Amino acid sequence: MLSTAPKGSHLFSRIWAKKATWPGLRYSSSSSPTAIVFMNMGGPSTVKETHDFLYELFSDNDLIPISKNYQRTIAKYVAKFRTPKIEAQYSEIGGGSPIKKWSEYQSSEVCRILDSISPETAPHKPYVAFRYAKPLTHETYGKLLQDGVERAVAFTQYPQFSYSTTGSSLNELWRRIKQLDPQRKITWSTIDRWPDNEGLTSAFAENIRRKLQEFPQEIRDNVVILFSAHSLPMDVVNTGDAYPAEVAATVRKVMHKLNLSNPYRLVWQSQVGPKPWLGGQTSEIVEYLAPKEDGLLLVPVAFTSDHIETLFELDNEVIGDSEYKHKIKRCDSLNGNETFIQGMAELVKEHLSSSELYSNQLPLDLKLGKSNDPITDLNQVFGKQNKN
Amino acid sequence: MLSTAPKGSHLFSRIWAKKATWPGLRYSSSSSPTAIVFMNMGGPSTVKETHDFLYELFSDNDLIPISKNYQRTIAKYVAKFRTPKIEAQYSEIGGGSPIKKWSEYQSSEVCRILDSISPETAPHKPYVAFRYAKPLTHETYGKLLQDGVERAVAFTQYPQFSYSTTGSSLNELWRRIKQLDPQRKITWSTIDRWPDNEGLTSAFAENIRRKLQEFPQEIRDNVVILFSAHSLPMDVVNTGDAYPAEVAATVRKVMHKLNLSNPYRLVWQSQVGPKPWLGGQTSEIVEYLAPKEDGLLLVPVAFTSDHIETLFELDNEVIGDSEYKHKIKRCDSLNGNETFIQGMAELVKEHLSSSELYSNQLPLDLKLGKSNDPITDLNQVFGKQNKN
Repeated sequence: MLSTAPKGSHLFSRIWAKKATWPGLRYSSSSSPTAIVFMNMGGPSTVKETHDFLYELFSDNDLIPISKNYQRTIAKYVAKFRTPKIEAQYSEIGGGSPIKKWSEYQSSEVCRILDSISPETAPHKPYVAFRYAKPLTHETYGKLLQDGVERAVAFTQYPQFSYSTTGSSLNELWRRIKQLDPQRKITWSTIDRWPDNEGLTSAFAENIRRKLQEFPQEIRDNVVILFSAHSLPMDVVNTGDAYPAEVAATVRKVMHKLNLSNPYRLVWQSQVGPKPWLGGQTSEIVEYLAPKEDGLLLVPVAFTSDHIETLFELDNEVIGDSEYKHKIKRCDSLNGNETFIQGMAELVKEHLSSSELYSNQLPLDLKLGKSNDPITDLNQVFGKQNKN
Repeated sequence: MLSTAPKGSHLFSRIWAKKATWPGLRYSSSSSPTAIVFMNMGGPSTVKETHDFLYELFSDNDLIPISKNYQRTIAKYVAKFRTPKIEAQYSEIGGGSPIKKWSEYQSSEVCRILDSISPETAPHKPYVAFRYAKPLTHETYGKLLQDGVERAVAFTQYPQFSYSTTGSSLNELWRRIKQLDPQRKITWSTIDRWPDNEGLTSAFAENIRRKLQEFPQEIRDNVVILFSAHSLPMDVVNTGDAYPAEVAATVRKVMHKLNLSNPYRLVWQSQVGPKPWLGGQTSEIVEYLAPKEDGLLLVPVAFTSDHIETLFELDNEVIGDSEYKHKIKRCDSLNGNETFIQGMAELVKEHLSSSELYSNQLPLDLKLGKSNDPITDLNQVFGKQNKN
C-alpha cells in the first residue's frame, strides 16, 4: 500500500496530501481493499429468475414512472403478464442473460490491472451490484461490509448517463447506505459517466473495423454503420436528460477513430408501450434502408456486454426477421475486449488519484431527473466535493 | 495560380494530378475565381421584407412538410397571418436581421485568407445564397454566371446537417442548376457539415470563457452552460435526421476544450405549432433551473451569427421575461470572431485540396430525408465522388 509507493513521488504526494487533509478520500491503512463496484441493470441469469427481474424493473419509479403510491402493485401485474414472453426470449438466447458472467469477468480483470498500475490503492476487489437481478445492490452492500471495505467506487456500467439508469442505481445505493450503513463505514465515490473514454471508444472502433472485414471488399466503404442505443421515452428526453447527447458523443468519437470511413447514423431501439420514444427507431431505419443499401452494420453502443437487446432483439428480430439479413451484420459487444477493460482500469486509476467524488454534471442530473425517492443531497452520499 | 506553387511540392502534385485525371475538380486556367458560396436560411434585412421571407420559408416543403400540392397556397395564408407578429420582433431587434451583414463579412474574410493560404485556387470570390431571403439562390446563381465562375463550393453555414436546412439548400441549388445552368458551366462541390471543426469549436469555447468572466468569481464554476440549438419536429428526428447527434458532437468538443469546467446541457429552442418537437425545451429548462442555480449561460450552438432566435427569442423572451434575468447571460454569437473565420478558411482550403465533393454522410441523408422535389442523384449535381 502506501509504503510501497516510492517516497516523494508525485502520485504519492498527491494521495498523501489528500489522506492528510481531506476525509472524503480515505484509503485504508490496513489490508482493507478498495472496492470497485460495477453497477448495471442486470438480467436474469436463468430463465426462472425472469419474473423477479421484471418485477424489480417495473417497480423502479426512476426507470418507469408509473405511480408514486401504486408502483409495486402495478409492477406485480405487469411482470406477471410479461413473464411468459420474456422467458421465451431468454430461453432462445441460451437460458439466461450473460450480463452477470461478463460483469464479473470485467470487474475482476479491471481489479487485477489496477493492483499493478495503482499500487497506492491496492488491493482492489471487484463487486457487481445489479438494479433488477442478483446480486442486488443491498446484497452486494452486505458483502462489502463483511469484507471490511472502507473505500468503494460506484462505477456505472452505463457509459452514458441517464437519470433512468445510472441515476436509478445511485438513488438505490443511497437508500441502501441509509439502511445498511448508517455509521458510514464505507466512503463512496462514483464514476457516473464516461461516454468518450479512450478504451471504450477504441474498443468500439476495433470491433467495427473487424466486422467490416466480413463484408465484401468492393462494398466495405459503403456499409452504413447504425449505432444502436436503447431509446428513452420522450417525456424523459424532454426533462433534459443527458443521455441522448452523451451517446452521440460516444458515436462521434468512435467515428473519428475510424476517420469517418463510412456513412453512419445513431438510432434508437427497444421502445415499448404506446408513449412516444426517441427515434429514428433501429428496426424502422433498418427496414427502410436494407433494400437500398449494400450493407448495414449494427453497433450496440450503450451497453458494455451482450444482453437480450443484442442477442434477441437485434440478432433474432431486427436481423433474423429481415428478408435482407444477408446484408446486415451486428458488431460484437464489448464483453471481454482487452482494450475496453484496460481503458476501464485506467479510468478508475485516474478517478482514484483525483479529488473528484462525482462528475460536475451529476448535481444537474439530479435536479432535472424525476424520482419518487431520490438522493436529495450529494454531500450526504459522497461527502463534500473538493473544487479544483 | 498553379504556376506560383513551388514545383514538385506535395500540394502542387495533388492538385495537378486531379486537374489532369479528374474533371470533377476543374480549376480555371484564367482569372476565373473560385466561388465560395455561403448557404444559409437568411432573414429579412429590413422589416418590410418579413412577409416575403415568411412566404418563402413556409413554401419550403423540405423544412415544413405541409402538402406536396398546396404548399404555396397554404404558405401564402400562414405568412400573411404571421407577418405582423414577426415584423414587430424584427423592429424590436433593430429593424431587420443581421444575418446578411455577417454572412457577407464572414465570406469575404474567408476569401481574403484563402487567397493567402491557398494560392493554388486563388482568386476566391465570396457569395451568399439564402434560402428564404435576398440574395436568394437563383439570384446568386445569376451573379456566379455573370462573373464567369467555373468552380464553386456550396458551403453550408449550418455546421450541423439537417435535411430540413442544409438538405433544403442543396435541393434548391440542384433545381437552380437545372434551370439556370443546364450546360454546367459551373462545377460544384459542397461542404455539407462541419460540426466539430477546430475553429468553430475553439471560437465557441473562447466566447464561453469570456462570458463566464462576467459572473462573480465565487459562482463561476457552478454556472450551468445551456447550449441551445433550434429544435426539430419529432417526425423529422424520427426519420434518422443527422442533426441532433451532430449538434451533440459540437457541444461535447466545446466542453472538452473547456476541460468540462462547468455543468452543461444541450437544450432545444424555437418550437412552433402543436406537433411534438425535440426537447428539453430551452425556455422550460431555463424556467425550471433559474430559481435553483447560481447562474445560467445560454450558448447558441447551431447558428453562426446573430438572428431573431438569439436577439429576440433568447435575449428578449427567455432572459428578458424571466424574473431571474440577473442570473442569466447569453454568450456572444460567432459573428466576426477571428478564430471562427480562420477555422472556416482552413476548412475550405482542406476541402479544395481534397478529392471530396461531398461528405460520405450525404447520400444517406438524402435517402432518409423527405422532400417534394429532391436531388435524386448526387452524381448529377456534383459529378462522381472519387473513392479514397
